[in-house]
Amino acid sequence: MKLTIIGTGLIGGSIALKLREKHFVDHVYGVDQNEQHLLEAKELGIINEGSSLENAIKNSELIILAIPVDSARKLLPSILDLVNDHQTVMDVGSTKAGIVKAVENHKNRNRFVAFHPMWGTENSGPKSAISDSFTGRAGVICDKEDSAPDALKMVELVAEHLEMNLLYMEAEGHDVHTAYISHISHITSYALANTVLEKEREEDTIFQLASSGFSSTVRLAKSHPEMWVPIFRQNKENVLDVLNEHITQLRKFKSALEKDNYEYLEELIRNANKIRGILR
Amino acid sequence: MKLTIIGTGLIGGSIALKLREKHFVDHVYGVDQNEQHLLEAKELGIINEGSSLENAIKNSELIILAIPVDSARKLLPSILDLVNDHQTVMDVGSTKAGIVKAVENHKNRNRFVAFHPMWGTENSGPKSAISDSFTGRAGVICDKEDSAPDALKMVELVAEHLEMNLLYMEAEGHDVHTAYISHISHITSYALANTVLEKEREEDTIFQLASSGFSSTVRLAKSHPEMWVPIFRQNKENVLDVLNEHITQLRKFKSALEKDNYEYLEELIRNANKIRGILR
Repeated sequence: MKLTIIGTGLIGGSIALKLREKHFVDHVYGVDQNEQHLLEAKELGIINEGSSLENAIKNSELIILAIPVDSARKLLPSILDLVNDHQTVMDVGSTKAGIVKAVENHKNRNRFVAFHPMWGTENSGPKSAISDSFTGRAGVICDKEDSAPDALKMVELVAEHLEMNLLYMEAEGHDVHTAYISHISHITSYALANTVLEKEREEDTIFQLASSGFSSTVRLAKSHPEMWVPIFRQNKENVLDVLNEHITQLRKFKSALEKDNYEYLEELIRNANKIRGILR
Repeated sequence: MKLTIIGTGLIGGSIALKLREKHFVDHVYGVDQNEQHLLEAKELGIINEGSSLENAIKNSELIILAIPVDSARKLLPSILDLVNDHQTVMDVGSTKAGIVKAVENHKNRNRFVAFHPMWGTENSGPKSAISDSFTGRAGVICDKEDSAPDALKMVELVAEHLEMNLLYMEAEGHDVHTAYISHISHITSYALANTVLEKEREEDTIFQLASSGFSSTVRLAKSHPEMWVPIFRQNKENVLDVLNEHITQLRKFKSALEKDNYEYLEELIRNANKIRGILR
């Protein structure tokens, strides 16, 4: 089978590597505005050849859209214009309501499957692609009833070859859940990095003292704005909702400390400890 | 050499394991209020025998205080009452100003060395002790001029056998830096866990969707209040100072989103990305 990946970076690259390795696809066309990325992707065995969008789509049974969510939303309608009833288009974006809305009335809507693999790192570009990234992670298919059964089946096969655990959700519900589970973590981490950079002027001290706890909490703050600004923008209402709650929760810690109310502080911590029962 | 560890948990246990493995000590007395921990520590090869505090101190050249910072501060004066000029006492607490203040006028103050190994996990108890935990991490000695040269040398040797990178600081400065680098990360993580637990009532969804990013940001929220309430309490002023700054930073993200000011949002993220240059 022939595959097109539009965007040869972290996610697109990791998917292509795995699908080639599993012989699910035997030829991969790479489409990328970044010529350097196309060269790297070819060198790294992610793609067989760089191609124009039109040529790649014409020759592929499966087209994977792996670019930032705002560009994906803009590009998807014109991709669907080009496909026939034997081709499948899937995205991998972290927000879903916007992209399904963008094609809700498209005549080829049912060739599209909205997909979100719950994996990522703070890195980007073909060089950060890792073949086994998705194993054991959740993969979410949204609004499956709007996709043709054979297109849906194709994406389910992709998820199976990526060794992911499949979940099905409404796009709206997906965006609410990812605001809690993923998007707020990034804002927290960015804000934490900015706090430390603002307050701790001695960079050497940060570097020398940084504990494993700090490093893991602040890791996501290395993530690039090209990917994350569009996510926050598309999921603005949900993210604001969770961000307000997060500020409220931080204020409780502040209040407990200010009032020397250590019983309350302990209660807040014991409540947070419940996450231990949920995440392993 | 004979060693006493008071508190046979994560930190005390990990230190004893490593020092035995390196043959820096040939006998370890364990002192712990928790009888079960003493049994586990013996089984795990952390200690040779459980002992009363008095007996252990009488027979040891080195005494390591590895209990929560409030208990450590209370207990240290009576330990110093018992030691002579050939014995060294060190602590391993995450706050330093309180404990050095507690013994500033003690006749044996110079037998004490204030030490902080910058490592920990969200787990506790002897079973979570890991021999190689400290390798390559920062170890901070505070107010070294208040310790006798031979006591200081002893703790430097301990740090060397733990394979740590030694730093020297004033206790007050240490507490300011750790508020930034360690304590605020824990509060952020606790508050994030509480946010998700408050807003996301579907525990199954948290479990199924939780991405690696979320898991790493929220990992510290599993840390126990027995250890952390005393740390926040002892470092209250610094922690409040950093917490206020953190809330201010979060408000900037909120404001950028509310006003649809995505240039500003990008600027905030680009600034946070600078942490990439500091932490590897």
